[in-house]
Amino acid sequence: MSKKIKLVIEYKGAGYCGWQRQEDDPSIQQAIEEAIFALTNEEVKLTASGRTDAGVHALGQVADFDLEKEFAIEKIRSGLNHHLIDSGISILSAEQVNDDFSARFSAKKRYYKYIILNRRAPAALENGYVWHIPMKLDIDAMKEAAKLFVGKHDFSSFRASICQANSPVKTIDSSKIIVEEEHIYYHISAKSFLHHMVRNVIGTIVEVGKGKYPASEIPDIIAAKDRSSAGQTAPAHGLYFVKVDY
Amino acid sequence: MSKKIKLVIEYKGAGYCGWQRQEDDPSIQQAIEEAIFALTNEEVKLTASGRTDAGVHALGQVADFDLEKEFAIEKIRSGLNHHLIDSGISILSAEQVNDDFSARFSAKKRYYKYIILNRRAPAALENGYVWHIPMKLDIDAMKEAAKLFVGKHDFSSFRASICQANSPVKTIDSSKIIVEEEHIYYHISAKSFLHHMVRNVIGTIVEVGKGKYPASEIPDIIAAKDRSSAGQTAPAHGLYFVKVDY
Repeated sequence: MSKKIKLVIEYKGAGYCGWQRQEDDPSIQQAIEEAIFALTNEEVKLTASGRTDAGVHALGQVADFDLEKEFAIEKIRSGLNHHLIDSGISILSAEQVNDDFSARFSAKKRYYKYIILNRRAPAALENGYVWHIPMKLDIDAMKEAAKLFVGKHDFSSFRASICQANSPVKTIDSSKIIVEEEHIYYHISAKSFLHHMVRNVIGTIVEVGKGKYPASEIPDIIAAKDRSSAGQTAPAHGLYFVKVDY
Repeated sequence: MSKKIKLVIEYKGAGYCGWQRQEDDPSIQQAIEEAIFALTNEEVKLTASGRTDAGVHALGQVADFDLEKEFAIEKIRSGLNHHLIDSGISILSAEQVNDDFSARFSAKKRYYKYIILNRRAPAALENGYVWHIPMKLDIDAMKEAAKLFVGKHDFSSFRASICQANSPVKTIDSSKIIVEEEHIYYHISAKSFLHHMVRNVIGTIVEVGKGKYPASEIPDIIAAKDRSSAGQTAPAHGLYFVKVDY
């Protein structure tokens, strides 16, 4: 009888081609699967709650895998972290879960945040962790725009052309802008998202902040169901996969 | 008539031997002096409010230099940042100040903070920006210990052997521990500090947190005027030079 293990994982997106294994590039998935092999001598397949793109960070990614042999569960977290030292990946917790648990399919809600550094001077300390926008932004308009994404919509205007989801309809539970001094934080949660959706949504909110169009145009941009009607894709390195509710 | 310019600077300590110019290692001072030369064609000497050690970060270091020729002051910040791109150094502001201003000698108060990540799992996102301490710490004891540093004391027990200050007597204006979830922030301010003093003080507060000795022993450790009576020097990469009051 195999054991299903659930991991909660923090990682820095830099230096990886994203979550998913690829032929020639280092991925988060590969790094952790290799650490699992080094620790347990088992070749496993790790499935994440959601794949993150190259450069996207995670504060609480969740993934699961099956172990065939007996292995002391309380040694998995520290054992994997030992093998992952200086990888930019840290296992926050490891626990045994029921066989029917799926990091991907059991997820009830996923949370992302996006960080903008809004000041004239470039980021020094936070370089690679924020989207630096030097011009003044209209914060009130951005707050208004953010709210207009809440609810069930066809998000075709915010969907990457390579997106493989069956339906472009998603339901946003919360979408809000919070400002703390030079930082603008965008928080969004939903059961699931389309490919590039969060980056395309915040990219569009930023265009509202720059005065390209008013917040009141957001419903029209959504209704257009056309990627070219929405704003640019925000840079990956400002995006954080925060957590998953099950 | 020369112009005196005051810079406020943010930097990441990693990759530099610290603020001060050295023969063979890249320093923050050298990087900025070279950017000033590239921008203005003048070889200047930049003086900081305080030298930081290798690895120590700055959120608001202050430095001054003199320009001989005319140069548009409003172009200095963006011009220097252009030459400092991807250096981990960002000029937050540049302004002309009176000739009698000295970043070093006019400073009335200097503020430092120290960040500890206190959890079992190593830092992934914050690696190089925090001191990771995996064991449980007694926060109340640390808060009590921190308070006992406030006031005028002989800080010989917290002074690096290479420290060149005339007197070991310093007056601490504030010294406190603030906890936010997994992070422990230590804030300390004073007119000036001895070499390694903040890192030796927080290193000692952490030993109280680990239960090596009670907070009530801090006055004795100070009174000993002996470096070996105090705790270890905390790692440089958890330390931030926050700002200077003039």
